[in-house]
Amino acid sequence: MGTVSTDWLHAPHIYVENTRGDDPSYEVTIEDVLRNLPSFCRPAELTCRYSDERNMESLRRADILIAGKLDTLLISSEAKSLKIIQCTSAGVEKYAPFEWLNPSVAFTNASGVHAEKVGEFALMATLMLHANVPAITTKQRHHRWSRVLRSTSAGCRVLIYGVGALGGAVAERLHSAGFHITGIRRSGKPVAAVELMMTPDHFHECLPFADVLILACPLTSATCGLVGAGELAALPAGASVLNIARGGVIDHSALRRALESGHLSGAILDVFEEEPLPANSELWDIPNLMIFPHVSADAPEGYVDRCLKILSENLTRAKTGRPLRNVVDRQFGY
Amino acid sequence: MGTVSTDWLHAPHIYVENTRGDDPSYEVTIEDVLRNLPSFCRPAELTCRYSDERNMESLRRADILIAGKLDTLLISSEAKSLKIIQCTSAGVEKYAPFEWLNPSVAFTNASGVHAEKVGEFALMATLMLHANVPAITTKQRHHRWSRVLRSTSAGCRVLIYGVGALGGAVAERLHSAGFHITGIRRSGKPVAAVELMMTPDHFHECLPFADVLILACPLTSATCGLVGAGELAALPAGASVLNIARGGVIDHSALRRALESGHLSGAILDVFEEEPLPANSELWDIPNLMIFPHVSADAPEGYVDRCLKILSENLTRAKTGRPLRNVVDRQFGY
Repeated sequence: MGTVSTDWLHAPHIYVENTRGDDPSYEVTIEDVLRNLPSFCRPAELTCRYSDERNMESLRRADILIAGKLDTLLISSEAKSLKIIQCTSAGVEKYAPFEWLNPSVAFTNASGVHAEKVGEFALMATLMLHANVPAITTKQRHHRWSRVLRSTSAGCRVLIYGVGALGGAVAERLHSAGFHITGIRRSGKPVAAVELMMTPDHFHECLPFADVLILACPLTSATCGLVGAGELAALPAGASVLNIARGGVIDHSALRRALESGHLSGAILDVFEEEPLPANSELWDIPNLMIFPHVSADAPEGYVDRCLKILSENLTRAKTGRPLRNVVDRQFGY
Repeated sequence: MGTVSTDWLHAPHIYVENTRGDDPSYEVTIEDVLRNLPSFCRPAELTCRYSDERNMESLRRADILIAGKLDTLLISSEAKSLKIIQCTSAGVEKYAPFEWLNPSVAFTNASGVHAEKVGEFALMATLMLHANVPAITTKQRHHRWSRVLRSTSAGCRVLIYGVGALGGAVAERLHSAGFHITGIRRSGKPVAAVELMMTPDHFHECLPFADVLILACPLTSATCGLVGAGELAALPAGASVLNIARGGVIDHSALRRALESGHLSGAILDVFEEEPLPANSELWDIPNLMIFPHVSADAPEGYVDRCLKILSENLTRAKTGRPLRNVVDRQFGY
């Protein structure tokens, strides 16, 4: 895992699968692939199909599969020539556990393609939380003018859970804007934008010092239900929460109680266990909670190119015997 | 105007007037004044009163008046020793015309004390407008999930009307964040953060190229009703508006129509002709319009010190014969 043999690299069979009805910004075309392949790589075959019109023979021959959604059963039973699966989504938690995946196949995700957009979104959302915009918005619903002045964000302390591609981009952008960042990551490895980096076992110690808690981790067995009533209670009064990870990371009932009691000043959620969020969800009307329709990370322009650049870089790495990047870790699931 | 004689500077009579019931963050204390005066200046008298318990004798003797709200009739008839009036508010439009003001008195305002806070607010609000947050918020009211992806703000074009202390701070912060800024100011004098600076007579030519229009000018006879139906129609489809100037600068009926027709994608208003905005105002429920309770510019911490530093600098300037700063222009009213 992480390296592949190189003999097939100069003339690979490439299979692209799109999903009919998806946003066209995420559709990978033959031109997209050709534009982004490294110059040494001239495909022997390049097939581009929707999932409802598969060319099974081409899929069986494919060395490289590029797809946003994976039919893992089909892949494991039919696509036996694969060396690389480039998923054009960053989150691949729905494909875990990875028994379906032949250990010789490099399964790479699109982690990192969202950096610029998610950094900007998180900056906006954190400024909004600091400025009490969720409460101001709730008051607007009730025609209530309530002038509570807020200082600038200069002293605002942000705790980011998950400082990978997503959280790292968030940290950089917030650090540049003057926020003080504490980070939690599995490795505990420091990064420049984060003043204090801790490992997950220190999460609870960090909570009392977080004015804004940002969830930016993948959804795994370790992060499912990470933030419940106890964690929210450990935040200082008036703190706020931003979730750009996955809906399952936070207990929404506990969040509701913390918002209704006034312990939390506000929250912004961009991700939900069921998306689109159903019209009858109770989340829509919780006071001081703003609902975003999963828009924090995806910028349509250039998305496909950014994904294919990961594949292209990996083909070059494979050719020169270096380990691939963006390989999904079978144990940790991202 | 702009210079004062210097003999009184070493032992001035200073009168501070506060308004009972105002936010304590804006109350000027004797300690505040003493902390901020230049070292050569040792007051002969320092009186600090609420406006409902005036000491008229002290006011008559005062060389310097420090106040947030001015009783102009009283000042013109009684406070005949004044050399400097330091208003702790930036907007002084309600005191125009200035017939009440003896031409020998330097009338200085607090313009500039809001720079850091307003820059941060405008960055937040402009990111929100670019990301369609007003529309997302309106959809939340109706439990509607509508995933429309937006690119980063890299190509977003902002037109700022009024590039003085307020608009200049906005321009700097937005420029740093990557927005493209065109500015309109009376002098047309360029500043680094503004790619293209125009004079007010070119306002209409600039409108078709503005993705976000930011109003940051003082309210004067020249800017009252500045933005009406014609100006909004001249903006490109999908544009948005941020008003941090004064309510009278924009025609709210025209804004309502432009939002309801969908020509504008959203608007954020922080200022209104009547504040607090009455509960029965129709503005509260206009789709894709977010109402803020006049919080864009005021950061409570350090406000008084920032105001008094203007006075302190002016006392030093007066002592050395240099023109004062922040002197209100009697013709233009700011």
